[in-house]
Amino acid sequence: MHAIVVTEPGGPEVLRWTEYPDPTLGPGQVLLDVAATAVNRADLLQRRGLYPPPPGASEILGLECSGVIAELGEGVSGWNIGDHVCALLSGGGYAEQVVVSAAQLLPVPAGIDIAVAASLPEIACTVWSNVVMTAGLQRGDVLLVHGGGGGIGTHAIQVGKALGAKVAVTASAGKLDRCRELGADLAIDYRSQDFVTEVRNAFGGADVVLDNMGAAYLSRNIDVLAPDGRLVVIGMQGGTKGEMNFAKLLAKRGHVIATGLRGRPDTGKSGKSAIVASVREHLWPLIEEAKVQPVVHAELPITEAARAHEMLDGPDTVGKVVLRVGRS
Amino acid sequence: MHAIVVTEPGGPEVLRWTEYPDPTLGPGQVLLDVAATAVNRADLLQRRGLYPPPPGASEILGLECSGVIAELGEGVSGWNIGDHVCALLSGGGYAEQVVVSAAQLLPVPAGIDIAVAASLPEIACTVWSNVVMTAGLQRGDVLLVHGGGGGIGTHAIQVGKALGAKVAVTASAGKLDRCRELGADLAIDYRSQDFVTEVRNAFGGADVVLDNMGAAYLSRNIDVLAPDGRLVVIGMQGGTKGEMNFAKLLAKRGHVIATGLRGRPDTGKSGKSAIVASVREHLWPLIEEAKVQPVVHAELPITEAARAHEMLDGPDTVGKVVLRVGRS
Repeated sequence: MHAIVVTEPGGPEVLRWTEYPDPTLGPGQVLLDVAATAVNRADLLQRRGLYPPPPGASEILGLECSGVIAELGEGVSGWNIGDHVCALLSGGGYAEQVVVSAAQLLPVPAGIDIAVAASLPEIACTVWSNVVMTAGLQRGDVLLVHGGGGGIGTHAIQVGKALGAKVAVTASAGKLDRCRELGADLAIDYRSQDFVTEVRNAFGGADVVLDNMGAAYLSRNIDVLAPDGRLVVIGMQGGTKGEMNFAKLLAKRGHVIATGLRGRPDTGKSGKSAIVASVREHLWPLIEEAKVQPVVHAELPITEAARAHEMLDGPDTVGKVVLRVGRS
Repeated sequence: MHAIVVTEPGGPEVLRWTEYPDPTLGPGQVLLDVAATAVNRADLLQRRGLYPPPPGASEILGLECSGVIAELGEGVSGWNIGDHVCALLSGGGYAEQVVVSAAQLLPVPAGIDIAVAASLPEIACTVWSNVVMTAGLQRGDVLLVHGGGGGIGTHAIQVGKALGAKVAVTASAGKLDRCRELGADLAIDYRSQDFVTEVRNAFGGADVVLDNMGAAYLSRNIDVLAPDGRLVVIGMQGGTKGEMNFAKLLAKRGHVIATGLRGRPDTGKSGKSAIVASVREHLWPLIEEAKVQPVVHAELPITEAARAHEMLDGPDTVGKVVLRVGRS
């Protein structure tokens, strides 16, 4: 098959579409002919050599894909050859074929194009596991989403609204209108406005904060929490080490939680299979009813992966960048 | 009535047993003739002027008591004059009489002396709300308790064991044997041993950590957490500001939670009434079956409150110090 390989750690120019050994199907897995994959920030880190794959995972980039089932491994039930699916991967999506545990498959939602479906598994599992399963967002809660214009952000806005929360976001100025269109009740320019003041004035505080900044926002994220509020940190774009003020946290009975998706075990209560099952049961219907819609900024051929990586941080990029692999 | 007053912020010598206006009974409250109260660390801070009562609370020390119901306020049902009860208070326990919301009453458990029962509400509600309701301790989990020899520590050991957890504690050398007698599977001398190494060697890591040290232990508490582990900080004896390392926390999908009991609202999901109701339903039976026993280091008359305060930090003090008020 062909796949994108990283010729050496570096910029987008190190990505090359080339021959690569076919993957080997194991028990409990399926082999997919990949229709499309999508770009995640972790891919950019991995390309630069900063985010090695976990043990046992493919060294090929790509944490999600869509495609058609080409072969079933031993013991797989509930799926058939020819099924149109998308999948949460530990790696390997930037390729013509990939193998994945059957427990990490999701059907392509009714009404969604198969290439567009490649943009869903990572954001769906990230937002659902953190905002709902971990932070327990309830109807009427206030959800603050940092990076509201990104793939995770645009999805989190819609999930929050679909569940009856009030949603505030931070984003750069050029993305605020799009965040409002997606349902955000309050869109805050992270450069010119103070999110603590804005959220407090509008709602009193935030019951759940979904954060991608880590250390840089820790103090202000605690300030913005409502009593019993939960801060969930899923990215460390603002650094890893920050000052924790327990007096402030205790006064609010606050929770500071940090999680990732890729390092989770396949099975168990906090494993990927449990998340995928909950997403399929609760979130997939919201997508099929169009209450939560995929937000795709661009679809490029996989041979233009370098350009897709450059695009991810663009000032006008809202939502996901999809890479069509196109055998299917 | 008589009560202990703090003549001015300072050492134990500022506590004086003197005349004090009778409390006023309101709707939904009961008036108790106090049998006994018990000393909590918060009392020592309040005596020194460092922990003012929340708005609306009595300025008299005492966060818990036992006694006999002397009068029922408007709208109180389910309780009768003459009932032997203990109560979680926002203040006012160091007195001959106190008024308290009926929702914060608990019956004196069968088989427990009424004076000893004064030692239960604060530790029962603290341990249950944090270890079970917030951190979700499960059968088979590893629970690490810092300050295992204190009132909260001695109670947490027993609750952990009664729920089927493996329990590790830190304490000073002189208290380790008593912690083991109470059920601790691993008792660690906090001065001469490293609790991270000891817990990792014995159990791999801790699923739940109950901490009273705050900033001083933050880094090591994160190191000792098992995957998906929950650190609950309920005291800041080691300071309020510490360095938070999100890379470490994220690698474990850890939770850092800080909570208090006194500042909680009376009602609502995280309110005192909900905690008291859960304690009565789930923990009280464990006490009545003697699976969890009160640990009282000493019982003194209320007129010796100063000596009781000095006793709390004594090298041989294990468990609670009770103050008999003794009208009942």
